[in-house]
Amino acid sequence: MLPGMTANRGYHHGDLRRALLAAAVEAIGESGPAALSLRDLARRAGVSHAAPAHHFGDKAGLLTALAVEGFDLLAGALGRAGGDLLETGVAYVRFAVDHRAHFEVMFAPGLYRADDPEVAAARARAGAALRGGIAALPARPAAEPDRDALAAWSIVHGFATLWLAGALPPAAGPDPESAARSVIRRLFE
Amino acid sequence: MLPGMTANRGYHHGDLRRALLAAAVEAIGESGPAALSLRDLARRAGVSHAAPAHHFGDKAGLLTALAVEGFDLLAGALGRAGGDLLETGVAYVRFAVDHRAHFEVMFAPGLYRADDPEVAAARARAGAALRGGIAALPARPAAEPDRDALAAWSIVHGFATLWLAGALPPAAGPDPESAARSVIRRLFE
Repeated sequence: MLPGMTANRGYHHGDLRRALLAAAVEAIGESGPAALSLRDLARRAGVSHAAPAHHFGDKAGLLTALAVEGFDLLAGALGRAGGDLLETGVAYVRFAVDHRAHFEVMFAPGLYRADDPEVAAARARAGAALRGGIAALPARPAAEPDRDALAAWSIVHGFATLWLAGALPPAAGPDPESAARSVIRRLFE
Repeated sequence: MLPGMTANRGYHHGDLRRALLAAAVEAIGESGPAALSLRDLARRAGVSHAAPAHHFGDKAGLLTALAVEGFDLLAGALGRAGGDLLETGVAYVRFAVDHRAHFEVMFAPGLYRADDPEVAAARARAGAALRGGIAALPARPAAEPDRDALAAWSIVHGFATLWLAGALPPAAGPDPESAARSVIRRLFE
């Protein structure tokens, strides 16, 4: 906390919640979600030790809120791709690169309450946005929408995960979006 | 340690190393690689506190050895698919499901010495086995081997990662191998 600052000073209720989520994103970016503690979050946000527990209950509650925020952001990003499958896939990879901490939490469901109704609703919105891209594919005799959606999800999730892990060979180039575009195109050939 | 057992009793040098790696796999399966400690490993293997450091130096050294072992196992599994891309992809997913702890460490290169020469050599063997599957694809006018290999790697890595995260919808079915087979086939159509 800054000198002279009292606990929670200057925060409205919603602002403090957002500040704590932002502090969580910062902490996860540095050390991953497993190392996160509510005490560390309170220190980062400059608020009382009790504030994170008041807002989120416990660490799983905080990560649940972060997962909801992440799936909402992902649904928005995919939706803005306008139903084009290639652009939807590129938007998925861009989301993972730009929101690495959210992405890491969202796909580590052991860390949060994955059956929370808000998580389920946000995840369903993201899923619907992804399937919106699939539906725009030209009709094919052998089309199987569930299977095609899973193939598209797998290829963009795998590319994003390998990129974030630094596992890709130099031939993939320095720009995740253009490399992803080239890889996703492989699904259309 | 069992009552009456002396430090390292009953272990030949190579056996102790293998016992420590097996204990690490068990510990990672329970709590992930971030929570692993050499002290906990020694306790699990029933050996002196000094034994893990003697064999691996530090935690990063232990995880480096686990990554080498993982890439070797992966190269063997992919190689046994006999150069068929579909079977190579299914073998990748089977490896991830059967060797979850290795898989998690291999693709978290911040946790170990990813530039270690033994890691690089084992990773290159696994990469060559994956590309062996790609090379067996029928020739196509627009074939781009680097890009096709990255697409195949992305789709199997993404499928395996989503499966391990418990993120897939019920429509994917209960069996990872048959679901993977159906998804990978999408690359050939």
